[in-house]
Amino acid sequence: MDTSFFSRIEARQKSLETHLCVGLDPDLTRIPDKYLTTDRPIFHFCQDVVDATHDLVTCFKPQFAHFAAADALGDLKRIVAYCREREVPVILDAKRGDVGSTAEFYAQEAFDHYKADAVTVNPYLGGDSLEPFLQRAEKGIILLCRTSNPGGSDLQNVSLATGETLFERVAGLASNEWNKNGNVGLVVGATRPAELARVRKLVGKMTMLLPGIGAQGGDVAASMAAGAGGGLIVSSSRAILYPKGGDQDSIRAAALATRNQINEHRV
Amino acid sequence: MDTSFFSRIEARQKSLETHLCVGLDPDLTRIPDKYLTTDRPIFHFCQDVVDATHDLVTCFKPQFAHFAAADALGDLKRIVAYCREREVPVILDAKRGDVGSTAEFYAQEAFDHYKADAVTVNPYLGGDSLEPFLQRAEKGIILLCRTSNPGGSDLQNVSLATGETLFERVAGLASNEWNKNGNVGLVVGATRPAELARVRKLVGKMTMLLPGIGAQGGDVAASMAAGAGGGLIVSSSRAILYPKGGDQDSIRAAALATRNQINEHRV
Repeated sequence: MDTSFFSRIEARQKSLETHLCVGLDPDLTRIPDKYLTTDRPIFHFCQDVVDATHDLVTCFKPQFAHFAAADALGDLKRIVAYCREREVPVILDAKRGDVGSTAEFYAQEAFDHYKADAVTVNPYLGGDSLEPFLQRAEKGIILLCRTSNPGGSDLQNVSLATGETLFERVAGLASNEWNKNGNVGLVVGATRPAELARVRKLVGKMTMLLPGIGAQGGDVAASMAAGAGGGLIVSSSRAILYPKGGDQDSIRAAALATRNQINEHRV
Repeated sequence: MDTSFFSRIEARQKSLETHLCVGLDPDLTRIPDKYLTTDRPIFHFCQDVVDATHDLVTCFKPQFAHFAAADALGDLKRIVAYCREREVPVILDAKRGDVGSTAEFYAQEAFDHYKADAVTVNPYLGGDSLEPFLQRAEKGIILLCRTSNPGGSDLQNVSLATGETLFERVAGLASNEWNKNGNVGLVVGATRPAELARVRKLVGKMTMLLPGIGAQGGDVAASMAAGAGGGLIVSSSRAILYPKGGDQDSIRAAALATRNQINEHRV
């Protein structure tokens, strides 16, 4: 049995019929009051989200900064362990990037300390900065390509002398030189369907993580059409974590509706 | 009195006659054995480095991953507080970068949780991702421009349709659109004096942080000449933290020799 990250994702997507990834972005100003009086508000909130949605998701994606800013990195470690107990893969959304010797410590942080199955990484520092991550053949290394924010165009969309854009250059490197272990994926915002289609042409079947649906306004139908032909993980965070009502039933209903919406538009 | 980060740096550089920044990259496989039996090996080692060198440095630069991988983020917080007690500015070398809503949490992590005076940030996600950092007018926001590693050229040195390179585009944005609060600096590796000279031409007096001397082989004389005409912070980590001998006297001697070498080549 192939236990690599993207194989596990593919198997779950088939057996559970879902492309949804729920982003765990705990925000103490938004989680229901009842958690605030517990010993670990962030952990218990995330745990309830996992309980309410685990059979509807391809994977969970805890976002590092939300735990770090609240001094709750112990809760990050606990929630990754909790997801693993339930055999749901975890992408640590940390967007790390540093020179080689330090990148090794970041790889240890993600995979040995938090025990994530995949991590998001920033490619700006180039191939040697990615090497300590890429060497972890069983893990998923998901590189930023075209991010979901408008300002992403400041650098990612600049035109190169070759005629391509920077994000297309990243897509090319990611699918060739950097993918010797077949463990690379790409982040392309669901807010950018035209760019998503261009990346799909460049990378073949490579899996893309699409943030930006829900609160950021990404278009599910356009994104599923543009990304067709390869792996897709569609991520939503705030729209699922903080629905009207705010209890576990509302969270499950939001996840179910999003999963179904994605499946309706599957090409 | 101007209490902004770069003003404090400039004042210290004048009064103490030093451009040296000591990078705090604690590595449990390299720190002397005597620390390993203490209750907090990483904190006590870093504390001894600070005690041995604080009057020789412009600032300290703790590197996040080294603390994170060793499950010692409490020690990171403690060592920042210890530097602040001694009134030495601290750059948190975290190379963060994320979309706007999450970037706000990363700014909180660096400035409110760890209480750093400055932070390194990755510009790949563009201007809106930097905004929560840039708004902190008193803090230093030090953007990656041309990093010290060979692979940095994979993206940073690509030629754009306009004829400039990507790192030159970053330098241009950093010194104009992104610098409304006058709190931006740039990382340019001391291993790249030719590129450093090009950045200096583009950014005027803006302060640059130069990693890469010491263990990475950067050329102090060439870097000081290439970077002349504006602020320079020259960073060394491993060559100072892990000298032959390994005691506080050897660490101080390594820092003193590096400070003097930098000053000799000041233009």
